[in-house]
Amino acid sequence: MRQAGRSLPEYRRLREEHPAFSDVIHRPELAAEVTMQPVRRHGVDAAILFSDIMTPVQAIVPGIDIHPGKGPVVETPFRTKADLDRLRPLDVDRDIPYVVDTVGRVRNELSDDVALIGFGGAPFTIASYLVEGGKSREYRHTKTLMYAQPEVWAELADRLADITLASLRAQVDAGAQAVQVFDSWVGALSVSDYRTHVLPATARIFAGLADLDVPRIHFGVGTAHLLPSMAEAGADVVGVDWRTPLAEARRIVGDRAVQGNLDPTALFAPPEVVDAKVRDVLADAGGEPGHIFNLGWGVLPETDPEVLTRVVKVVHALGAA
Amino acid sequence: MRQAGRSLPEYRRLREEHPAFSDVIHRPELAAEVTMQPVRRHGVDAAILFSDIMTPVQAIVPGIDIHPGKGPVVETPFRTKADLDRLRPLDVDRDIPYVVDTVGRVRNELSDDVALIGFGGAPFTIASYLVEGGKSREYRHTKTLMYAQPEVWAELADRLADITLASLRAQVDAGAQAVQVFDSWVGALSVSDYRTHVLPATARIFAGLADLDVPRIHFGVGTAHLLPSMAEAGADVVGVDWRTPLAEARRIVGDRAVQGNLDPTALFAPPEVVDAKVRDVLADAGGEPGHIFNLGWGVLPETDPEVLTRVVKVVHALGAA
Repeated sequence: MRQAGRSLPEYRRLREEHPAFSDVIHRPELAAEVTMQPVRRHGVDAAILFSDIMTPVQAIVPGIDIHPGKGPVVETPFRTKADLDRLRPLDVDRDIPYVVDTVGRVRNELSDDVALIGFGGAPFTIASYLVEGGKSREYRHTKTLMYAQPEVWAELADRLADITLASLRAQVDAGAQAVQVFDSWVGALSVSDYRTHVLPATARIFAGLADLDVPRIHFGVGTAHLLPSMAEAGADVVGVDWRTPLAEARRIVGDRAVQGNLDPTALFAPPEVVDAKVRDVLADAGGEPGHIFNLGWGVLPETDPEVLTRVVKVVHALGAA
Repeated sequence: MRQAGRSLPEYRRLREEHPAFSDVIHRPELAAEVTMQPVRRHGVDAAILFSDIMTPVQAIVPGIDIHPGKGPVVETPFRTKADLDRLRPLDVDRDIPYVVDTVGRVRNELSDDVALIGFGGAPFTIASYLVEGGKSREYRHTKTLMYAQPEVWAELADRLADITLASLRAQVDAGAQAVQVFDSWVGALSVSDYRTHVLPATARIFAGLADLDVPRIHFGVGTAHLLPSMAEAGADVVGVDWRTPLAEARRIVGDRAVQGNLDPTALFAPPEVVDAKVRDVLADAGGEPGHIFNLGWGVLPETDPEVLTRVVKVVHALGAA
């Protein structure tokens, strides 16, 4: 459950002491603690590394900040061929030793029956921050780069794919037993733009992880129209948000597994409605294996942690852990 | 092309003199002028009434403002059964005489071969503003009302449907030759929530328009997963954003017509890319009738009006007007 921490008092206390987001990521004892908090609290079957989509790139490109509320802010946006020079390959030992250290610490602390999922960003979503300079609604500059300078875009996407790949391989080396690649905002693209401008670089990440033999999860929000193409990108598990029923998602992704997809806002409903919605997700996923129960997107900060704990219990009780 | 005005210097000049959005809507000579501007400039085949999704409700409920940049802001959000009392039926003559007047003026000014499309909001999108108090990302309060007090939600949705229906019938009486119902934010819902909590009230609008014998257009953004259900709501034309290829949309909506779906950000691409994307949309829609060419969503304010004019020319030249 991504961003489960935001709803936890213990996370908020830690963030009061360490208000800079990047500070928490850069200090393995803090990042490990924050990664562990939802596991201790809710008894989930897997932890996801506390990180940010921009973490590896932030280590390479100066002038990237993670602002509270605003998300990543890039001082000098990437808009031209010359900007590519600002994006050298990732040197794991030099650039993100703290990520590797965090993974090792979490793996040591987790019991053997709880999996650690490594964390990476997909090229489109990372590029959207780099090109727009921050969060966007329309992705106008990103798409303009794609349309007007397709070869610059392709090179940018490939470089970002290689950076994510290097980060994820290092996380697996350090003990992560699965990886998840977040393409949070890719749902803004048409099918045709996705296939031409995003699928190749994204597929590069999954192909580059194949020899590690760990489950590879691929997730985006608002991707109902992209699911057939995302299934081609090569992940073992396709995560879907709450919009698409899992039965429909299964039909689309074929023999791949699915992850999801309780609406995070459903956690604000009365208990009997929450329970019914959890049961609906499980029923929709069907009895067969190949389903990872999850929310369809990040936990909202206002969520009552007790409700999350209850959901985990209901899922376990229904035997679909 | 919705919100085409935002890109036009003549619209910006008018708004400098009349900075309050509601002012423009409340003064028929201004609203008519703004409705006409894109027709004069671009030579499109249809005009869409300049209005806001909140216009009829704004006339009924005090404390609703349309803020520049922020959109509708509702001073006291709707959250309980008691709030329903604030929403009496629409009395067209008393509440929105200026809308009727605007439609008449535009119809008089338009040549016979340019259609005027009436403008209305669908219950979910209007309700989301009323319940959240403004724009939202997660629609937490709206969905919570839906889940926790489904009968209050249903009554709210029905009342909003009746208000939109009354407004649209009045617009047709005054000379609109088609109507478009915008459910801009409904893509945030799961298929199941849409079918249970939104489809019935939305269908009420289209059923209530059936006897008028005007084409009824139904549009939302990010609705790839909802298209089969939206097709059931009863409109004659289903508008889709740029995400879903029109060939796929046609397959889903069966014998209904489709509207769309050039990505508004594509207008920032070099001319040859714009032209190729226009051709793609037309090719994707196929040669048969039953396609209204349009953007997949509103015109971005930064758009070069010359590019819009060019797109209209290309579409006309390709014979798909």
